[in-house]
Amino acid sequence: MVTMSQTIDIDAGLIEKYIMELAKFGEHSGTGVWRTVYSPEWVAATQQYARWCEDAGLTVHHDTVGNVWGRLKGREPGPSIVSGSHIDTQRPGGRYDGTLGALAGLIAIRALKTQFGIPRRTLEAVALCEEEGSRFPSAGWWGSRGITGRIAPGDSDKLVSLDGTETMTDAMRAVGLDPDDVAAARRNDIDSFVELHIEQGPILEQVDLPVAIVSGITGIRHYDVELIGQQNHAGGFPMDMRRDPMAGFAEIANSLVDTAHRWGRPAVTTVGRVEVEPNSVAVVPKRVRFTVDARHPVQESYERLMASHERLMREVAARRNLEISWKVMIDQPACPSDPGLYAVAQEAARDQGVPFMTMASGAGHDSQQMAAIAKVVMIFVRSKDGRSHTPEEFSSIKDIVAGIRVLAATLHKLAY
Amino acid sequence: MVTMSQTIDIDAGLIEKYIMELAKFGEHSGTGVWRTVYSPEWVAATQQYARWCEDAGLTVHHDTVGNVWGRLKGREPGPSIVSGSHIDTQRPGGRYDGTLGALAGLIAIRALKTQFGIPRRTLEAVALCEEEGSRFPSAGWWGSRGITGRIAPGDSDKLVSLDGTETMTDAMRAVGLDPDDVAAARRNDIDSFVELHIEQGPILEQVDLPVAIVSGITGIRHYDVELIGQQNHAGGFPMDMRRDPMAGFAEIANSLVDTAHRWGRPAVTTVGRVEVEPNSVAVVPKRVRFTVDARHPVQESYERLMASHERLMREVAARRNLEISWKVMIDQPACPSDPGLYAVAQEAARDQGVPFMTMASGAGHDSQQMAAIAKVVMIFVRSKDGRSHTPEEFSSIKDIVAGIRVLAATLHKLAY
Repeated sequence: MVTMSQTIDIDAGLIEKYIMELAKFGEHSGTGVWRTVYSPEWVAATQQYARWCEDAGLTVHHDTVGNVWGRLKGREPGPSIVSGSHIDTQRPGGRYDGTLGALAGLIAIRALKTQFGIPRRTLEAVALCEEEGSRFPSAGWWGSRGITGRIAPGDSDKLVSLDGTETMTDAMRAVGLDPDDVAAARRNDIDSFVELHIEQGPILEQVDLPVAIVSGITGIRHYDVELIGQQNHAGGFPMDMRRDPMAGFAEIANSLVDTAHRWGRPAVTTVGRVEVEPNSVAVVPKRVRFTVDARHPVQESYERLMASHERLMREVAARRNLEISWKVMIDQPACPSDPGLYAVAQEAARDQGVPFMTMASGAGHDSQQMAAIAKVVMIFVRSKDGRSHTPEEFSSIKDIVAGIRVLAATLHKLAY
Repeated sequence: MVTMSQTIDIDAGLIEKYIMELAKFGEHSGTGVWRTVYSPEWVAATQQYARWCEDAGLTVHHDTVGNVWGRLKGREPGPSIVSGSHIDTQRPGGRYDGTLGALAGLIAIRALKTQFGIPRRTLEAVALCEEEGSRFPSAGWWGSRGITGRIAPGDSDKLVSLDGTETMTDAMRAVGLDPDDVAAARRNDIDSFVELHIEQGPILEQVDLPVAIVSGITGIRHYDVELIGQQNHAGGFPMDMRRDPMAGFAEIANSLVDTAHRWGRPAVTTVGRVEVEPNSVAVVPKRVRFTVDARHPVQESYERLMASHERLMREVAARRNLEISWKVMIDQPACPSDPGLYAVAQEAARDQGVPFMTMASGAGHDSQQMAAIAKVVMIFVRSKDGRSHTPEEFSSIKDIVAGIRVLAATLHKLAY
């Protein structure tokens, strides 16, 4: 057994090559990637990931949801140590969100095999699917939900694509997956899941550090809200007699954002999507539909923030005589990292001489699903300008190598 | 010459039949009509209008913009007395907005001819096109602008449809109109233009009167505003570091609407249209584009209201570090009615024993274009619940007959 202070060698050229080559599948507006789950670009990316797993001497397995696994069998029996992330993107997203973690797991295991040989415990890299919900808005964490047994029979029939034209069932069948066979993707033999991801925020850059070890993942709730008023002519109807859902929406969006702003870090609230009917210049609208994304990593504060938002929406709608209704599309409680893994990852970073900080994740991740069946911890890599969910997202190869060294050292501590 | 106290007979059954039959061209969601300019439904409606003009013994003429005229030649030479309105609709609108005025002109002239014979001065009914700007957002009052010579050569090449797929030139050629021949639609032989229209507001209903004589038409400005911020992940980016154009839009829309509300009647401000990029739940948007429709019938107040709105938009954008820019799509100054015609119409209503009030119009109308070449006045008919620009708009046949009697008596005073 090697000592932990040994530096793990990560091939900077290889990771750069893999990032750039995978970004070609769904390449969009220069540095962007538009690669939704089960699209032709996504299929091509999974095939490429599988080939690279084979190159690394891993045994490839495509599961019944569409996740791709590369397995390095350990000398001893027992549950696996897994690392990976998702390879679907926003519409468009960048080259790093998710994809970097899928590649990092593969590169880390490849490096460990080269440097230290066959591990004691089985190591697996994984490329997950539809974390973003960018093709099917209610299907976030679809791949990791398949692994944790959180997809119920018939779910795929109910999930409708963003453009309303197809169900998840249609999309799966189109790429040769059988929606009735999703339960077979369930795993009950994973001990630990270590996910590397870009930070998607500006905090590491602010404090000038390459890497963070994540204490836990924020709670996330998504509301789909509908306000209904009365459609009228924009000229003939006096302000004092209107029931204007756009005015109600504007007051609500303004107040929700202000509320999160006043709470301060780490509370966040975003209104990202709005649709107006009929959406005409000279017509007081009949209906405004919008989303609210609200997050807090401390469960008790999370509950208070949501209650505050709901109270405000009801109050504004009642005062303005508007009908209001909402559906909660996502309600993901705050998810603390496993305390043991969290300590191991920090020790690994110290061993490798990689300077780091700890922070909570403001974004949701597959790890919070995997936490249902495994111990989890995450490693963040600095994002340029804190940008993500955009073609402009960027992390330097130097920071990425530092992050993968911490990942590999963590896996080494767990598997060798 | 008859005395003015003679009641003019209006055929209630005929006007009801005409309203219902014309509503079939573009029938939408039950009581609605979706009939944009130069569409197949619009072509069919113009043909029907022309047939009814012929039935009434009027000489039909289709001009080079697409307006349809029905002429009853007077015994004496000289400029015409004209009545009509537009037959294009919102997407969808109702059966009455515009259409009722086109039919009222025809029915009134038909009734005068039947009851009083050939007039001294020439009378004309007209069905105008694209008042709404519902197919080409920047082409409001297209038909009446053609008549007043306010369409410049090449304008039709620059006007792009709401869906961005075609120019006005394309649309005109598709129905056999030559955009290079628009100047031929210009008229310089119209003395007076009397337009009957539904009120499109709740004021007549509030005071329980069937008809209003319009003192003038509100000034209308339409802004097309773009706010640009920085697209970011909705979780990873702290509130205090965001440049969120949705938050800026919400504050602006909320404040503009509140400003008009505080000013009170007759000031109105409407945000009817908004488009967000990328419009995703978990993404702080990059760009929000929206419209502002602001109106006041007193020119000095109109200028102050616009200045106040512009100051507020600039202030919010600057404070939130957002780029802001706008185009003024429509800037139509307040348009008072001709004092002589305004008095004649009131006298006509008194003669016919039709109870009425006077009011300013909060909506824009073809009359404000026609005012460039003719004396104008308008007659309003009560709208149920003040509704317009919606399939639910409704006026009773009893109120409509009262309105057409006032219209016919006004035309009688001018032409016989």
